Amino acid sequence: MKEARFPVMEIFGPTVQGEGMVIGRKTMFVRTAGCDYRCSWCDSAFTWDGTGKDDIRLLTADEITAELRALGGDGFAHVTLSGGNPALLSQLGTLIDALHALRIEVALETQGSRWQDWFLQIDELTISPKPPSSGMNTDWPTLDDIVRKLEAAARNFSLKVVVFDDADLAYAKQAHERYPQVPFFLQAGNANLKETHAIRMLPYLVERYEWLIGKTMADAQFKRVRVLPQLHAWVWGNKKGV
Amino acid sequence: MKEARFPVMEIFGPTVQGEGMVIGRKTMFVRTAGCDYRCSWCDSAFTWDGTGKDDIRLLTADEITAELRALGGDGFAHVTLSGGNPALLSQLGTLIDALHALRIEVALETQGSRWQDWFLQIDELTISPKPPSSGMNTDWPTLDDIVRKLEAAARNFSLKVVVFDDADLAYAKQAHERYPQVPFFLQAGNANLKETHAIRMLPYLVERYEWLIGKTMADAQFKRVRVLPQLHAWVWGNKKGV
Ligand code: SF4
Ligand code: SF4
Repeated sequence: MKEARFPVMEIFGPTVQGEGMVIGRKTMFVRTAGCDYRCSWCDSAFTWDGTGKDDIRLLTADEITAELRALGGDGFAHVTLSGGNPALLSQLGTLIDALHALRIEVALETQGSRWQDWFLQIDELTISPKPPSSGMNTDWPTLDDIVRKLEAAARNFSLKVVVFDDADLAYAKQAHERYPQVPFFLQAGNANLKETHAIRMLPYLVERYEWLIGKTMADAQFKRVRVLPQLHAWVWGNKKGV
Repeated sequence: MKEARFPVMEIFGPTVQGEGMVIGRKTMFVRTAGCDYRCSWCDSAFTWDGTGKDDIRLLTADEITAELRALGGDGFAHVTLSGGNPALLSQLGTLIDALHALRIEVALETQGSRWQDWFLQIDELTISPKPPSSGMNTDWPTLDDIVRKLEAAARNFSLKVVVFDDADLAYAKQAHERYPQVPFFLQAGNANLKETHAIRMLPYLVERYEWLIGKTMADAQFKRVRVLPQLHAWVWGNKKGV
């Protein structure tokens, strides 16, 4: 079989994971190109809307690990696979194997629209179904199936919903109640994707986070939740590659 | 045996846990009075320096759970025990039992200067040894013993070091290398305990967090670390009881 190549949009790090279940973790990022969704507020639209197409490289697992080492040396033990939607890539297990062989842990973020068997190799898997403000529709039977398979294998995974408004919050509650046993993260959405000056964005981001805290603290149905901001936006605004 | 009473400084919530291994979690706080340390930058000095002594109440486990329910109703499933140093209270296991009976999880934060057998009942235990800037000295053999006991019982625990300067960072590295297998959190210290206006503090807090990220990302010896701010300070500044 010909060696698999993956469409890679960017490789960067080491930096901190700014979101979700491993927030704060020192990690490298591998961002793959291509997404089956087109969320209205996508902060990685360059991975699928054509604007970044000249930056896409088709790399093998070995080429990716070599580039990670060139950037991060021996100073990291964690890689985050992000997109786009890396779950479009059926062969990605070979990259995960290569990283595990180097004793590097691997996290994945995907919206939960597709299953891949290599999900079972992921050390921290974040499923991030998209709320109404995204303009996308959730395929609940597919999500049910993904959750069931990960639970059957006792994998370390969580759900994360980005929330912009009350309709999103209602959607998040529905997801939390559908899978009450799954660790559940709420994340304050950032609708301010144009601002490049991080400090100018801070009051807005804090206000959004405080709004989400207020809503969830007052709501008894949100019991076992974790409410988080996007730390990287607080520090670096909308800057890419950090 | 007479029913145990605990010196309680404050009970508040629900709010988000702003730090460490369960950052973002919806939780209630029970803050006990009294500490065997006197850290120079303690943000809870009112628990031990006499300034809060009129607020201390001696409460039983049942009185504490009743007050938690009065404040948080049925809308929470997590309680954080904080101080001061709750590890000074040998009977605290009765409170943990009472909370577990209500299907409430319990987290603890302690500096690791004392062992208590009820540590083995804690769902998420954060040991936060204090770096040089605190003015305190770490009792390493005691800390070794605590780590050994928690590992032998396969408990869910982590180490967290608050870092203000390079000497603190060197201390943190020493702690990380002494217990390389224990999940390790670095937290940017807040030396600005007087500022009451949250928004005015933000640029400072972001700068401190970015400084700590820069140091740890550049250092190959910090590999399996998580670097976090104090989220509650970013949102509420130095305000108490939120
Ligand atoms: S699923 Fe993610 S990458 Fe795809 S469009 Fe939505 S936000 Fe963007
Ligand atoms: S150990 Fe904690 S409560 Fe005690 S003095 Fe130090 S910072 Fe304050």
